[in-house]
Amino acid sequence: MMDGTAYTQSLERMNSVVFIYGKRVESFWLHPVMKPAFNCLKETYNLACDPAHNPALHELIVAQSPLTGGPISRFLHVIQSREDLLARMKMQRSLMRHTGGCFGGRCVAGAVINALWSVTYDVDRENAGKTDYHKRFQAFLKTAQQRDLTVMGNITDAKGDRSLPPHRQADPDLFVRIVERRPDGIVINGAKLQQSGAPLAHECLVVPTTALGPDDEPYAVAFAVPGDTAGVVHVNDSACANAKFMVMKPDDIGNTTFGMHQSAHVLFDHVFIPKERVFLCGEWKATRDMVHRFSDFQRFASASCRCGYIDLCIGAGLAIADFNGVAQVGHIREKLTDMSIDAETLYGLVAGSAALAGPTASGVVLPETLSVNAAKIYMNDAILKAGQRLAEIGGGILVTRPSSCDLEIPGVGDLLRKYHQGRKGVSVEDRLKMARLCESLSGLAALTPILSVIAAGPPATQRLNFRLMTDFDRDRKAAERLAGIVTPAPK
Amino acid sequence: MMDGTAYTQSLERMNSVVFIYGKRVESFWLHPVMKPAFNCLKETYNLACDPAHNPALHELIVAQSPLTGGPISRFLHVIQSREDLLARMKMQRSLMRHTGGCFGGRCVAGAVINALWSVTYDVDRENAGKTDYHKRFQAFLKTAQQRDLTVMGNITDAKGDRSLPPHRQADPDLFVRIVERRPDGIVINGAKLQQSGAPLAHECLVVPTTALGPDDEPYAVAFAVPGDTAGVVHVNDSACANAKFMVMKPDDIGNTTFGMHQSAHVLFDHVFIPKERVFLCGEWKATRDMVHRFSDFQRFASASCRCGYIDLCIGAGLAIADFNGVAQVGHIREKLTDMSIDAETLYGLVAGSAALAGPTASGVVLPETLSVNAAKIYMNDAILKAGQRLAEIGGGILVTRPSSCDLEIPGVGDLLRKYHQGRKGVSVEDRLKMARLCESLSGLAALTPILSVIAAGPPATQRLNFRLMTDFDRDRKAAERLAGIVTPAPK
Amino acid sequence: MMDGTAYTQSLERMNSVVFIYGKRVESFWLHPVMKPAFNCLKETYNLACDPAHNPALHELIVAQSPLTGGPISRFLHVIQSREDLLARMKMQRSLMRHTGGCFGGRCVAGAVINALWSVTYDVDRENAGKTDYHKRFQAFLKTAQQRDLTVMGNITDAKGDRSLPPHRQADPDLFVRIVERRPDGIVINGAKLQQSGAPLAHECLVVPTTALGPDDEPYAVAFAVPGDTAGVVHVNDSACANAKFMVMKPDDIGNTTFGMHQSAHVLFDHVFIPKERVFLCGEWKATRDMVHRFSDFQRFASASCRCGYIDLCIGAGLAIADFNGVAQVGHIREKLTDMSIDAETLYGLVAGSAALAGPTASGVVLPETLSVNAAKIYMNDAILKAGQRLAEIGGGILVTRPSSCDLEIPGVGDLLRKYHQGRKGVSVEDRLKMARLCESLSGLAALTPILSVIAAGPPATQRLNFRLMTDFDRDRKAAERLAGIVTPAPK
Amino acid sequence: MMDGTAYTQSLERMNSVVFIYGKRVESFWLHPVMKPAFNCLKETYNLACDPAHNPALHELIVAQSPLTGGPISRFLHVIQSREDLLARMKMQRSLMRHTGGCFGGRCVAGAVINALWSVTYDVDRENAGKTDYHKRFQAFLKTAQQRDLTVMGNITDAKGDRSLPPHRQADPDLFVRIVERRPDGIVINGAKLQQSGAPLAHECLVVPTTALGPDDEPYAVAFAVPGDTAGVVHVNDSACANAKFMVMKPDDIGNTTFGMHQSAHVLFDHVFIPKERVFLCGEWKATRDMVHRFSDFQRFASASCRCGYIDLCIGAGLAIADFNGVAQVGHIREKLTDMSIDAETLYGLVAGSAALAGPTASGVVLPETLSVNAAKIYMNDAILKAGQRLAEIGGGILVTRPSSCDLEIPGVGDLLRKYHQGRKGVSVEDRLKMARLCESLSGLAALTPILSVIAAGPPATQRLNFRLMTDFDRDRKAAERLAGIVTPAPK
Repeated sequence: MMDGTAYTQSLERMNSVVFIYGKRVESFWLHPVMKPAFNCLKETYNLACDPAHNPALHELIVAQSPLTGGPISRFLHVIQSREDLLARMKMQRSLMRHTGGCFGGRCVAGAVINALWSVTYDVDRENAGKTDYHKRFQAFLKTAQQRDLTVMGNITDAKGDRSLPPHRQADPDLFVRIVERRPDGIVINGAKLQQSGAPLAHECLVVPTTALGPDDEPYAVAFAVPGDTAGVVHVNDSACANAKFMVMKPDDIGNTTFGMHQSAHVLFDHVFIPKERVFLCGEWKATRDMVHRFSDFQRFASASCRCGYIDLCIGAGLAIADFNGVAQVGHIREKLTDMSIDAETLYGLVAGSAALAGPTASGVVLPETLSVNAAKIYMNDAILKAGQRLAEIGGGILVTRPSSCDLEIPGVGDLLRKYHQGRKGVSVEDRLKMARLCESLSGLAALTPILSVIAAGPPATQRLNFRLMTDFDRDRKAAERLAGIVTPAPK
Repeated sequence: MMDGTAYTQSLERMNSVVFIYGKRVESFWLHPVMKPAFNCLKETYNLACDPAHNPALHELIVAQSPLTGGPISRFLHVIQSREDLLARMKMQRSLMRHTGGCFGGRCVAGAVINALWSVTYDVDRENAGKTDYHKRFQAFLKTAQQRDLTVMGNITDAKGDRSLPPHRQADPDLFVRIVERRPDGIVINGAKLQQSGAPLAHECLVVPTTALGPDDEPYAVAFAVPGDTAGVVHVNDSACANAKFMVMKPDDIGNTTFGMHQSAHVLFDHVFIPKERVFLCGEWKATRDMVHRFSDFQRFASASCRCGYIDLCIGAGLAIADFNGVAQVGHIREKLTDMSIDAETLYGLVAGSAALAGPTASGVVLPETLSVNAAKIYMNDAILKAGQRLAEIGGGILVTRPSSCDLEIPGVGDLLRKYHQGRKGVSVEDRLKMARLCESLSGLAALTPILSVIAAGPPATQRLNFRLMTDFDRDRKAAERLAGIVTPAPK
Repeated sequence: MMDGTAYTQSLERMNSVVFIYGKRVESFWLHPVMKPAFNCLKETYNLACDPAHNPALHELIVAQSPLTGGPISRFLHVIQSREDLLARMKMQRSLMRHTGGCFGGRCVAGAVINALWSVTYDVDRENAGKTDYHKRFQAFLKTAQQRDLTVMGNITDAKGDRSLPPHRQADPDLFVRIVERRPDGIVINGAKLQQSGAPLAHECLVVPTTALGPDDEPYAVAFAVPGDTAGVVHVNDSACANAKFMVMKPDDIGNTTFGMHQSAHVLFDHVFIPKERVFLCGEWKATRDMVHRFSDFQRFASASCRCGYIDLCIGAGLAIADFNGVAQVGHIREKLTDMSIDAETLYGLVAGSAALAGPTASGVVLPETLSVNAAKIYMNDAILKAGQRLAEIGGGILVTRPSSCDLEIPGVGDLLRKYHQGRKGVSVEDRLKMARLCESLSGLAALTPILSVIAAGPPATQRLNFRLMTDFDRDRKAAERLAGIVTPAPK
Repeated sequence: MMDGTAYTQSLERMNSVVFIYGKRVESFWLHPVMKPAFNCLKETYNLACDPAHNPALHELIVAQSPLTGGPISRFLHVIQSREDLLARMKMQRSLMRHTGGCFGGRCVAGAVINALWSVTYDVDRENAGKTDYHKRFQAFLKTAQQRDLTVMGNITDAKGDRSLPPHRQADPDLFVRIVERRPDGIVINGAKLQQSGAPLAHECLVVPTTALGPDDEPYAVAFAVPGDTAGVVHVNDSACANAKFMVMKPDDIGNTTFGMHQSAHVLFDHVFIPKERVFLCGEWKATRDMVHRFSDFQRFASASCRCGYIDLCIGAGLAIADFNGVAQVGHIREKLTDMSIDAETLYGLVAGSAALAGPTASGVVLPETLSVNAAKIYMNDAILKAGQRLAEIGGGILVTRPSSCDLEIPGVGDLLRKYHQGRKGVSVEDRLKMARLCESLSGLAALTPILSVIAAGPPATQRLNFRLMTDFDRDRKAAERLAGIVTPAPK
């Protein structure tokens, strides 16, 4: 298995074409907007190789492969039991709590690997041996496990008009498709958009994004392709959040090392895929299972991961509240408790989808569909609420703090420091660092949402007004009269 | 009344000390992170002077002052009736829908002006004529109205340990206080943090941030001070969202002109305030009313404004859904309806606080407390939900779109354009612009929240799974049996 | 104006045909399931006639009529200003807080009177004087005001297959319709179902339940008919909640005097309506306005009323918590505060719909549509949540208390009393009475909901487990590490 | 194992003292308010004995006991693995979907049995063999399994002032306690209130209701006592919902056979408990584990059961919507989907608490605490919302339908039938039956909640108003202008 250094060297050996904000970047993994995602992946390599780095995570991140007979990264593991599912769940939560970052480049692979493993098995069986997709895929996966590769699951197509199926789009390439079939392989056109961590992967494992009908046969294609193959181009996304990594100093960004999710558009321009790397080729009927299986698995993985994210929000909320001297205030304790309820509800639900899981024909065990879909729905709100609660706990300082440069302005820096003290014993710098982490974790950008929460007093202030100003006595008297109570009890 | 040009010239004539990200900036209003807020204020001057610019808004933004006998900016108006409150409410919503930006520098003034007008009146009456704060304040306000100034309400103190009152803080300056009383005025220390639009104002109108007790007497101080007075320093906040305006091209930012909220720390270092500009000076008992009144008014103003914000989210959501070809999909229509319900619930609640309003002794009419506090609580969730819904409607493109620079990469730009088509008839550039606006309005930063909503399919996909996979027939049969239905009706 | 005795006598003089649970009942208003509703209406007569009974409510319940020039019941008042709307709103809340019961028989009239007043005005104007519906209606209303009648608004038709319009139903009578037009009047068939308080009214004021198209012309009919006219039959509903009034002793029912809502089916079997009592006769185009106006007004009235209902829930919750010795417990105070926020949000929203109201052509002022619809939506949840919160506060005793008969079992009654003590100083009987009122107000029947809330400990217990068992320290350490904090602050 | 007839005979052989609404009742299980609960328990006996009655449930309800070596009721099973937990979960959901009723008398036993099994094991071990509680309990349980008894877990004490511990209450008996210790056993005073199904059980298994301190030593007592022992008195609760079973005809009650939850107060007046039936006797330290373990298990069982309850609500909602002709309407489909999401979220969460479960020292496997507590919190809302949604789907007919007696009134019954038709092909009687079941399942009593939901139109009507009346175009134009779109796309 590779360690972080070996992983870095493996990227150096590749010739991937990567554009960031309009420019081709050679050592793209060092570019500020991609480095945090790179650090996350590198960390997975270090954790797997060095038990001392974090023993508990090391345990979780290494699995035993029946394919290679040796230890492999759990990211590349074929799920063979409910215990495997639970181990994956635990790894995802712990990893997220460890870095607060995204492992997109490795994480999605689990969804595609397990779905392809089972679907190619089914297809070959249905074809009564006339196809050998499963064998091809086994071979590919075994090599990936042996070489400890980062395999990226490529899913989301361009889609064009969302109300139309692939074959009715204005441009036939709006979903990835076979443009030519040759004896030795196929030629591919299309794009996979918003692929988390794509340029950081050695291999792209491409599958259809949606269940297809008979008219969409050329779109029913699955294959693996190295990220630096001729005709493959990566263009990094341009989310506004990227900007902070491009212009701000590390001290002014929360979770500088790991805290930047990165995604890229992967464009395929007449890319040749040799036969042995093609795992579906026109079997449109199989796409329904394919899509359901990888979707469910990805819901499983991401819901697990977000439990760790809420853990971090709890920790950051508690810390900033303590730094402000209000860790014991009732409504803050309630918010921390609410976050914990959300984290454990989500976690329990994911565990439940493992407990209710059943095996596919191939032996792959996939999470039970309804509970894992319920988990995804729950997660959606829970993450947003965690961000909102963090903002309510932390207050305006999340977005209004001075920068590290401001602290160095002669004459002014000292005043800023003076006025950004929290409770006694807390260093101003630590308080500002935690505020930055809170901003980052909250997922809220500066403008309206945090201001809406905080300005004119946080909601706790307005609630207090209700407690103080409601005419409780009037209401109680009315109730006592209607209940037929003649002499009210002394209070 | 000033127009936009006159307003700009008035800023040029000032000598305000403003630092942005560690550097003193002279023409600070042109700095990328401050220009949008400046544009918002400038727009209020243009709207007031030029009826043709936007007739409906012009009507709303100009009020008649009993103090000057002429037309003034409604931002500086003393509220004398429920109709005045309703007019202010309408102006706030329309202005926000017009710009999607923040008028912090002018808007908060309404809260402080109306609170001070009524509280100084009460204090003078209680002091049986021994003080003349109200007369002083009338004189100040009349001049501000006549000169059409931007008056900033300065409220939020540094606060230090939030569990301690001002006089028990480790540093006595953590709340703004009188450090010296002279025959001709007072000397002030302290800081007002996170002041929206502060450097763009001509005058700072400073009031206490909290209700004070007898031991906090030196903190019971209210006064007006020009923003460029000696000893006053402005330091811009360093919210991560600032970064996009510092590094990205206008085409890559949603609502480039107006869409950046700006706040600053205002530091007072031994600032002298002449007597006639002091409006409270030790009257700690009055601070309770002061705080309640400006808080309620600011809740009123901001809740009104957020209705316009949700209007914009509705419009942007509808547009991006249409560009994607899914404007008629059920769950999207429901989300747009939900946003409209939130907007009108909030608006109705603000109108209700006006309908239930009563006059203070001074004649100032303030919104009814409980309903306006309820509005603020409602707004808190409504804004966050609007952002979440917008992300669910728009999808991943909000954060994963290519930048304008990417579109110009030879050979690649055309591919990006090809793969970012939406429905027929929509230009790719317009689709990307609307995605940017959606990102900006959603208030969500890239990383986890939008990804949590979108990855592995938006929640609507998971709901669909429930509709398709729930065993409705099993449940119906169980119910029919228990109801005692022997021969179920034909379906 | 009539007092309660005169109202009772007026019912005695009528010959209404009323069936309750299968039997014709002569003095139906004394039947246990109808008496509480009768008591509510009687109370409105007493409040209007006797200022000393409840001065504040007396003020609210009497209005000045421009039609009669004298004092009338506000229930019969034509709304001529926003102030009239606000007065109605206040009356509804106060009346509900006064009785906790339903004034269905009188309350709905406001919706129909104001809608008909304005719609007949519009129709006559459009018909350029060829119809005189408005004059007819004025005459009817003037008499009703002078005689201080209870006028019931009859709205909800039988409807049959809800997916079909009236003229396509299997039976033409499933919506009230004109079966014959004579020179002196019309003959009517149909039914109005679930009419609150219908048998207790002197007059039925019948209008269409839905906006009609041209093919539904015979269904576009509005008229007034005395409740004891030949061919009119009332059949009381058979809600399971009726049973408690039929079998239990008064002491075992919460709010025995007023707390039973009653509704009836009103069947019209070839009923003749003389011309001067017909207010619409085929004008299908007018039904859209008709329906919108009475719906909005009824939403206005019922949302106002429910504020008083939540007031009672607050009072009852506070009382039972105090009787149990837990009035100061944090989560109970929060629940009471939540209820107050709901009450004031609802009230503010209703007031807002008055503030934003505009006049119709006839001068009638109706609540603004969107805000009053938002109020109804808000009310829906708020009432259910108030019931849930009341159950959480009060606990199992709401449904598991012993009955008054049990307390009299020799040897056992004393044990029951012993084991149903609450805090010191509270009489067991009062505690049980308040529990009964809480059950009644909660609106929850015994079985699953209250049990779901309470069994295995109320939710507050489970939350406590989270507070005690969450590994907050683990999460905080993770956050401090990611924020870059090297030496955590002492705690 | 007993069948239903044998169970009935076993009750006949007992001499239990049971009062219902003030009167001693001999064959209490036939009393209308107790018969449904009796039917539920009887059904469990029939299901266990007769595989043909319901094969799937038969499979679930029978477990293999390591204690007896033979088949036993799963209600009496000691949980030895995660699979046992999952089997119990499945049984609870299926049983509830089968009857819609409560198995209180048997169900709670699982919580107490598993808690006592493990706690007595721990206590004996800590006492180093000086106590033999575990052996005693084993003996008791083995007999109960062999004789297939209904064992009731008795938990909830009278509690008095909830802010005081047992030993500080005004009356020492407010928690069950040892009043005398004899060589051959102990004498007990106290009461267990609101015990579901208590009189229908053969044995009461009594444990403390709360974690106790050293001063509460006499309250740390656990024991088993036959329900007809001298000094044990049962008094049935007097929930208002009882009344419908006392006065209404079966056809007018939803789920007549099973649908009435019953609870009773169990009073212990100097009851002697022989030594071998005493399982804790002063070990106050053990009460903490005891309470946690049975609480968690009961949360597990009841949350599982409520999934089946929501299943029934889905089925009933679908049926009544279909009978009304609106099964395909969008908002109704959404509500059914929402209920399914809630059911599967709850189920997944319970399954997760099994997946995360670990063994106690005794080998008993208990659900993981945080996830099962989260399940209970989730269930609380889900059940209330299911009731609310059912009311929104079904409408007013839930509470306003005519009774079976009304349908027989000469001349009137036919009219009622005519006006209660639904869609073509549905019998009026079936429609009324399903409405009754919906009322019963909704858990809502007639008065305010259902009326609040339905009157003035269900919420879907108000939402429709928003969809029709929101100025979407205004909002879209504002968004397009701010996004910088010059020529909007054709629509």
